[in-house]
Amino acid sequence: MKRNVLIIGAGGVAHVAAHKCAQNNISLGDIHVASRTLGKCKAIVDSIREKGSQRGSGLLKAHQLDALDVEATKALIRSTGSQIVINVGSPFLNMSVMTACIETGAAYLDTAIHEDPDQVCEPPPWYANHEWKRRDACRAAGATAILGVGFDPGVVNAYGRFAMDAYFDEVESIDIIDINAGSHGRYFATNFDPEINFREFTSNVWSWEGGQWKSSRMFEHRKDWDLPVVGRSTAYLTGHDELHSMSKNLGVPNIRFWMGFGDHYINVFTVLNSLGLLSEKPVRTAEGLEVVPLKLVKAVLPDPASLAPTYIGKTCIGDLVKGTKNCRPREVLVYNVCDHKDCYEEVGSQAISYTAGVPVVAAAMLIANGVWDVRQMVNVEELDPKPFISLMNRMGLVTRVRDEQGDRVLDPYKESPATARSPKQVVDAPAV
Amino acid sequence: MKRNVLIIGAGGVAHVAAHKCAQNNISLGDIHVASRTLGKCKAIVDSIREKGSQRGSGLLKAHQLDALDVEATKALIRSTGSQIVINVGSPFLNMSVMTACIETGAAYLDTAIHEDPDQVCEPPPWYANHEWKRRDACRAAGATAILGVGFDPGVVNAYGRFAMDAYFDEVESIDIIDINAGSHGRYFATNFDPEINFREFTSNVWSWEGGQWKSSRMFEHRKDWDLPVVGRSTAYLTGHDELHSMSKNLGVPNIRFWMGFGDHYINVFTVLNSLGLLSEKPVRTAEGLEVVPLKLVKAVLPDPASLAPTYIGKTCIGDLVKGTKNCRPREVLVYNVCDHKDCYEEVGSQAISYTAGVPVVAAAMLIANGVWDVRQMVNVEELDPKPFISLMNRMGLVTRVRDEQGDRVLDPYKESPATARSPKQVVDAPAV
Repeated sequence: MKRNVLIIGAGGVAHVAAHKCAQNNISLGDIHVASRTLGKCKAIVDSIREKGSQRGSGLLKAHQLDALDVEATKALIRSTGSQIVINVGSPFLNMSVMTACIETGAAYLDTAIHEDPDQVCEPPPWYANHEWKRRDACRAAGATAILGVGFDPGVVNAYGRFAMDAYFDEVESIDIIDINAGSHGRYFATNFDPEINFREFTSNVWSWEGGQWKSSRMFEHRKDWDLPVVGRSTAYLTGHDELHSMSKNLGVPNIRFWMGFGDHYINVFTVLNSLGLLSEKPVRTAEGLEVVPLKLVKAVLPDPASLAPTYIGKTCIGDLVKGTKNCRPREVLVYNVCDHKDCYEEVGSQAISYTAGVPVVAAAMLIANGVWDVRQMVNVEELDPKPFISLMNRMGLVTRVRDEQGDRVLDPYKESPATARSPKQVVDAPAV
Repeated sequence: MKRNVLIIGAGGVAHVAAHKCAQNNISLGDIHVASRTLGKCKAIVDSIREKGSQRGSGLLKAHQLDALDVEATKALIRSTGSQIVINVGSPFLNMSVMTACIETGAAYLDTAIHEDPDQVCEPPPWYANHEWKRRDACRAAGATAILGVGFDPGVVNAYGRFAMDAYFDEVESIDIIDINAGSHGRYFATNFDPEINFREFTSNVWSWEGGQWKSSRMFEHRKDWDLPVVGRSTAYLTGHDELHSMSKNLGVPNIRFWMGFGDHYINVFTVLNSLGLLSEKPVRTAEGLEVVPLKLVKAVLPDPASLAPTYIGKTCIGDLVKGTKNCRPREVLVYNVCDHKDCYEEVGSQAISYTAGVPVVAAAMLIANGVWDVRQMVNVEELDPKPFISLMNRMGLVTRVRDEQGDRVLDPYKESPATARSPKQVVDAPAV
C-alpha cells in the first residue's frame, strides 16, 4: 500500500491527472505538482480549488523542479513523502525521473516513451533503447514502474490483452485506431505538445507485421474505418509507443497503429516537414543564431491547453482485434468514446488530455491499493487488465465492446472467462 | 563623367551586376564588390574570372564591409576611388549607403526600396517614408541618386513612361505584370532573398486606383493575363515599390502591380503566414530563445543562388498600358522575356537575378557617360527612357512591344515621336 503522489509536469495531461488525483485523494493522500515553471503548477492547484475537485483532506501543493536534476527530484520525493510519482512532463525527462524513483523506492508511472532530444525515431523496439535497460535495477530495488499508462499507449495495451484473454483462442491482428473527430476551431493546432506530436511523424513508420518490424513512410498507408459514434474515419499507419512492447509481450503476429488525420493537418504537416521546419537539428540563421526549427514551430502554435474551452466533438480510440475462437473467425472492437466538452466541464481540459490523464491516475490508485504494485518494471499489457478497465469505468472513461453480439459497456468481470489465458511473460498481479 | 564602381551586396543580383560591370569595364573602370561576408564577394570575383567576363583591364576586387557603418562605407568609396555605388545588398542598408554616397559625392543606385527591419508595409507612398526625405540633401550635394533601377521597380517604370510618351495622348491605366513561368525543380524556394520576398506579401496590398491609394488583402484579387511566350498566366494584385513613385510622377489614375503565383506557392505561403512563421516580430521559445520566425524560414529555404544551375523556362515582365491616342482607345504591352537557362550560361544566374542586375548596370553606364548623371535624386520614370531601353537591348534584356500593329522588338528611337510628351516633374536629361 502506497500513498502521496508527486505529479511531474504542468501541461494538459498533468492538469487532468492532478484533478483526478484530487478527486481520489482519500486513497491517494497528498498531491504535489512540480515542473520547471512554478506558475503553471500553481495554475493547476488553483483550478482544482476552483472546481472543488478535492474530495478528502490532505496537502495540495505546487513546486518548482528541474526534473533532469535527479538529486533535486529525489529530495522532493523525500520531502513530500511521495510514494507514487506520476511523470507526465516532457518525454525527455523519463530516465531522470525513473532514476530518482528507483533510488528512493517510489513507484514510477508515465504516459509516453523516453525520447532523446537529438534523436527522432530510434530503432525498434523503442523501449529497449532506454527504459528496459533499467529493468534489473527496478527488480533489485523492488521499485514498481509502469511504463506508458496513458490511453495510447496504456489503455489500448490493456484492451489488447483483455481481448486476447476474454474473446479469442488465437489472435491474428490488433489494429489500434485513434480518431479525434473533434474541432478546436483554430487554423491549426496540435492536441498535445507540438514538439512531441510532430516528432512522431517526421521519420519512418514502424509497424509489426507477420512477427517482424516493417518500415514505411508517414501517410503511405491509409484506411477508412467504420467506428461507433464518430462514423467512417480515415486513419494513417503511424509509428507509436505501444507497438514496441505489445509486439514483445503478446505473441500476436500483426500489431498496427492507425491515427486519424484530416487533409488540412496533412497539408500543414507536409509543408512544414518538407521545408525542414519540423527538424530537431539546429540551423543557423544569417545573423548567426542557432535555432531548432521544431522549437520555434512549437512557440508559434497555440498552447494545446488553450484549445479546451471551445473544443467540441468526440474522440474514439480502441483496438480492433481479429482472430479465432473455437476454430471460428471473430472480430471484436474494444473502445472508448470521449467528449471534449464533457471533459472541459469536469476538469477544464479537452479529451486528448483527459484520455491520457485519467488512466495514469487509475494506475496510481491500483498501486496505492496494492493490486498493481508489482515491484518491478512492466508495460501495461503485462498486468491484469480487469481491475484497470473496471476502475476507469467509474472514473469517467467507460470502455465499450462491439462484436457479433452487438455494442455494449464492457464490464471486464462479466465478459472475462473464469480463468484468464496467459500471454507470454504476463506478470501475476494479485486479484482485486 | 564618372568611373569606378563599388557594388554593395553579394547575393544573386550582385552576382549579375558584377558580371555585367566586368563586361563593360572599359567604360566603368575598376569594379569592387563588398559585403558582410568576404567569401561571397570572392566567389563572385572568382566566377567573373572563370567566365572570362572582364573585357578591359582594371581592378576587380572583393572587400568585407558592414554597410550599416556609414564611415566604413565612405572610407571604402574613397580608398577605391569609386564614383558610382551600386547598392544591391539588403534593403535594410539603403539609407546608410545613400548617406555615404551623399557625403562622398558618389552616384547612388539601388534596385529595391528601403525597409525598416521592424516594419512591414509602411503607409504609402513608401518612398516618402525614407528615400525622398534625402532629396534636398542630394540636390545640395549635387549627388546623383537613381532609386529602384532593377527590373521591377526600374525597367517597368521606364516602360510606363515610354508608353505614355510614344503611344498615348491620355493614359487611363498601367498594369505591371510579372510572371515567372520557370521551374527550379525544388519543393519550394523563393527567387530572391526569402525574407524580402515574403515581406512583400504579409501585410495589406496597396494599389493606385482612380488617383487614390486602395488597400486590399493579398491574394484577394486575381486575374488571368494573355501574355507573349509564357501564354495565359494567373497573377494576383500585389503591393510593389514602383507604384509609390509612378503614382506621384506620371499623373496616371490607375497603376497596379500583378504578380504570378502558382497554387503551390500560395499554399506554402498561406500555411507559413497563417501560423505566424513569416512574422518579422521575435517570438520566445520555451527555452527562452528570442527568434524572428521569418529569419528562421529564410535559413531553412534554399539559397536563391543555388537554384540557377537547374532553372528552366522563361520570365515575362511588362506594362500593359491602356488609354487613348487621337481620341481612339488603345492598348499597348511593353515587355521583356528572359530565359533562365540563357542567363545561367552567360553569367551563372537565373533570370530573376539577371533581370534585376542588368538594368542597374545599364543605369551605371548612363551615369558614367553623363546621360543620366542628373546630380539629384530621381525615380526611373523621371528620366528619359530611350537611352536606357536602347542600351539594355544591347546588354541582354531586349524590350518588345505588342499592339494593334503586332509584336516586335522595341527600338525606342524609331518608335518614339520626335518630341517627347513631358509627364509631370520629368527631369531633363542630356541626349545620348
